[in-house]
Amino acid sequence: MHKIVILRMGHRPQRDKRLTTHVALVARAFGADGVIIAGVRDIGVERSVRKVVELWGGPFFIRGGEDWEKVVQYWRSDGGLITHLTMYGLPVEEVLPSLRGKDLLIVVGAEKVPGKVFAVADFNVAVTNQPHSEVAALAVFLDRLFYGAELKKEFLKWKLKIIPGKKSKKVQKMP
Amino acid sequence: MHKIVILRMGHRPQRDKRLTTHVALVARAFGADGVIIAGVRDIGVERSVRKVVELWGGPFFIRGGEDWEKVVQYWRSDGGLITHLTMYGLPVEEVLPSLRGKDLLIVVGAEKVPGKVFAVADFNVAVTNQPHSEVAALAVFLDRLFYGAELKKEFLKWKLKIIPGKKSKKVQKMP
Repeated sequence: MHKIVILRMGHRPQRDKRLTTHVALVARAFGADGVIIAGVRDIGVERSVRKVVELWGGPFFIRGGEDWEKVVQYWRSDGGLITHLTMYGLPVEEVLPSLRGKDLLIVVGAEKVPGKVFAVADFNVAVTNQPHSEVAALAVFLDRLFYGAELKKEFLKWKLKIIPGKKSKKVQKMP
Repeated sequence: MHKIVILRMGHRPQRDKRLTTHVALVARAFGADGVIIAGVRDIGVERSVRKVVELWGGPFFIRGGEDWEKVVQYWRSDGGLITHLTMYGLPVEEVLPSLRGKDLLIVVGAEKVPGKVFAVADFNVAVTNQPHSEVAALAVFLDRLFYGAELKKEFLKWKLKIIPGKKSKKVQKMP
């Protein structure tokens, strides 16, 4: 299996807690291996994501406080590609064929991202060229990368699992 | 064309400004007609969404402060379907064939949604049965509903438009 890791840039603990948490939960639910928060550590975000992994299953990792350029360097030296999600990039459907079957570091910004990121990325990829949400861009990107297979992904070591229902809220608990 | 409108439930102006804005921008970018915020009016959110429409094009509407049960009632009396996005629902790929070609009110909650919503919805739909993000669920739902055609949607009356680039941030301005 190829590694898919999200690099979250520009996280500001005062403002971005919930959006960064959503980025991480989307990464997990849509089949990525983990998320790295660049620059700062936010224990609150890490804790809520780990709580979800503990209850709903994994594997999935979250790390924080790492220098983004070092993460990128390391990833590249290991043979992986750097993919930056941005509304300025090339259409996702054009780029995806070049990305499948590779180890991908997916860079996702909060508000503005340093111009250097555009230069360093192997691919700048747009999920629509309209302003919307990094959470949405990541979800659609992963959904298309995996051809929707992640919608049926089974997690390991879960304590809670939903039994899909027409009108119900049914949750199975690990005995 | 069929109408696709998002009903955002449970918006708390203190906490949910950015997530609700992301919900609205995703609705616009992925081809919906508008968003209604139930219960409260949040002028800040309305203003930032209208600013995006003014700059990047429309049509797209945002309204707030409406009673959710009245919105649902009106929608139904007009022949539309009520679709509620929830991790407890039936898998999106099973439900979509019943939804295409219909007027859809798509209910999207922030945190907990009243139990009544599950009962009143024609379809409770899950985009994965894992906890993640209403922003992501909405994007993937619309992407699949429209078979990805919204990725190429052209907006009207735009002042700014991106020219997709490999490494660049090119924006075209309406002359």
